[in-house]
Amino acid sequence: MAGTTADGVLILTTGGTIDKLYFDALSTYQIGDSVVGSLLQIARVTMPFRLVELMRKDSLELTDADRSHIAGAVADTPERRIVITHGTDTMTQTAQALAGIGGKTIVLVGALAPARFAESDATFNLGMAFAAAQVAPAGVWIAMNGTMFPADRVRKDRAANAFVAQ
Amino acid sequence: MAGTTADGVLILTTGGTIDKLYFDALSTYQIGDSVVGSLLQIARVTMPFRLVELMRKDSLELTDADRSHIAGAVADTPERRIVITHGTDTMTQTAQALAGIGGKTIVLVGALAPARFAESDATFNLGMAFAAAQVAPAGVWIAMNGTMFPADRVRKDRAANAFVAQ
Amino acid sequence: MAGTTADGVLILTTGGTIDKLYFDALSTYQIGDSVVGSLLQIARVTMPFRLVELMRKDSLELTDADRSHIAGAVADTPERRIVITHGTDTMTQTAQALAGIGGKTIVLVGALAPARFAESDATFNLGMAFAAAQVAPAGVWIAMNGTMFPADRVRKDRAANAFVAQ
Amino acid sequence: MAGTTADGVLILTTGGTIDKLYFDALSTYQIGDSVVGSLLQIARVTMPFRLVELMRKDSLELTDADRSHIAGAVADTPERRIVITHGTDTMTQTAQALAGIGGKTIVLVGALAPARFAESDATFNLGMAFAAAQVAPAGVWIAMNGTMFPADRVRKDRAANAFVAQ
Repeated sequence: MAGTTADGVLILTTGGTIDKLYFDALSTYQIGDSVVGSLLQIARVTMPFRLVELMRKDSLELTDADRSHIAGAVADTPERRIVITHGTDTMTQTAQALAGIGGKTIVLVGALAPARFAESDATFNLGMAFAAAQVAPAGVWIAMNGTMFPADRVRKDRAANAFVAQ
Repeated sequence: MAGTTADGVLILTTGGTIDKLYFDALSTYQIGDSVVGSLLQIARVTMPFRLVELMRKDSLELTDADRSHIAGAVADTPERRIVITHGTDTMTQTAQALAGIGGKTIVLVGALAPARFAESDATFNLGMAFAAAQVAPAGVWIAMNGTMFPADRVRKDRAANAFVAQ
Repeated sequence: MAGTTADGVLILTTGGTIDKLYFDALSTYQIGDSVVGSLLQIARVTMPFRLVELMRKDSLELTDADRSHIAGAVADTPERRIVITHGTDTMTQTAQALAGIGGKTIVLVGALAPARFAESDATFNLGMAFAAAQVAPAGVWIAMNGTMFPADRVRKDRAANAFVAQ
Repeated sequence: MAGTTADGVLILTTGGTIDKLYFDALSTYQIGDSVVGSLLQIARVTMPFRLVELMRKDSLELTDADRSHIAGAVADTPERRIVITHGTDTMTQTAQALAGIGGKTIVLVGALAPARFAESDATFNLGMAFAAAQVAPAGVWIAMNGTMFPADRVRKDRAANAFVAQ
């Protein structure tokens, strides 16, 4: 199921709503084990991929050091097709930190509802990102709300709880 | 939810496993109302799209006339971003019938398990197709098994129940 | 789908994890519209029932006045088959407030994971409660963890996040 | 997760729609591994139970010998709380074959849509049966359509695709 060649897809998970769990004992939620591997299995993916958990954070908690770490992981890998799962609140900031990396198709993706919900945008969004990493021109993209946004022309509208072009 | 401009996505549904229902009264499966609209709503899609049911057939039942009808629908529409949901058995044949249409990104997509199943590849695949229609070069593509296949370089391996490059 | 005769089932919803939603805009959970009606529809229930939202609270927030209100609703209705959806933390306290009501089968039920999660105990638990209200002896019951507990012989073990006999 | 004491629940699986899989390669369905164990795990069941696959048949294919085998399995076990998953078409016939067994609460249950469907009555129905086996009077019951039917006073209305009292 997993390959490490330069032609495969590298998936970096960083946390965010997509991986949120609900813990009744605390009546709270936390970021759990990533669901990405399970979603790819259900999708019967045969394209080689490598799945790496970089961190497990709400995107509001990400620091400049975290963003440098993500950018380094993208720059240093042989893969040219990169998917990054990420919280939605600061997805565009992380995109800026990746803007200087050339020759790779980098797709940031998250979810507005946890993947563990019966009705979530997570699976569809991950499919978008996985395809775009293969066929979109090099650069940084955001795959949300059914739309492939060039990462420097999108913002999250918190009131509408949706990404919109700008 | 729907737009009709040339920049939106046109989704044509033709049937196939993705839309199969189970009817207990007959203990059989039949192709039901398309689930595509519901999946796009759950995915919180804001990209304009237009959804058209062309037919409701197992792909083994598609005739040359059906394929001409599909090709005509793709050629005659202002949209340049086209997703076609389709049974998997003859998806590559329909791709051939679309090969001559220039200037459009056409993505064929289906599912190996009905979308109404709790564990199906349908939602992921549809996300792939919806993204690829926006960012892939013009031409005919097949989005299955986590892979964006150029449509003239793929076949369905029925024994493995998966699409493989050729 | 709903009936009001004494032979039908009365379902009172009071809130709790079973009905929790996730709001990304706030990165928090709140109690949303009850999922009970939707779950009964998916279950193809033909038994007459009446569904009444009494309140929408975490069970830790329930007051003595709330419990009196619940008990009054149970006592004053013609139905003898009662299901109450309820947060799990103080379910046994509410059961005590109902202990004096004779001649009715009262089943308290909740969930350890929100019903909106793909993997939740909510649907199974609701099925348990709906059946027990029909066939269990009169009295107060708690339907959790696959077990029909007489309500005066059970407690929630918060560390184990499960109900256990006592 | 499983116990074998007389106080636990014995679950016998015999096949039916509840366990149906869809096989795209054949464009047909077959009865697969039982989903019951998985559903009980998701329901966080702590009540001891024992799960035994007796057969894997459409209920229209069940023979008199099969029914004798089921009745023998129920009669010969120490458990007094019995759940039998079963196809819906001949559920009432099997109930007749069980009618002579005294001192046990026997609940027949199935589903009108496969449990593997996202929207199925399977989980709710199984919860009904699991609870009824614990709290209903001894005898043979059918748990379908949200209703606990005494097994000798119910029939399947094939046109309505629902169980109705008679």
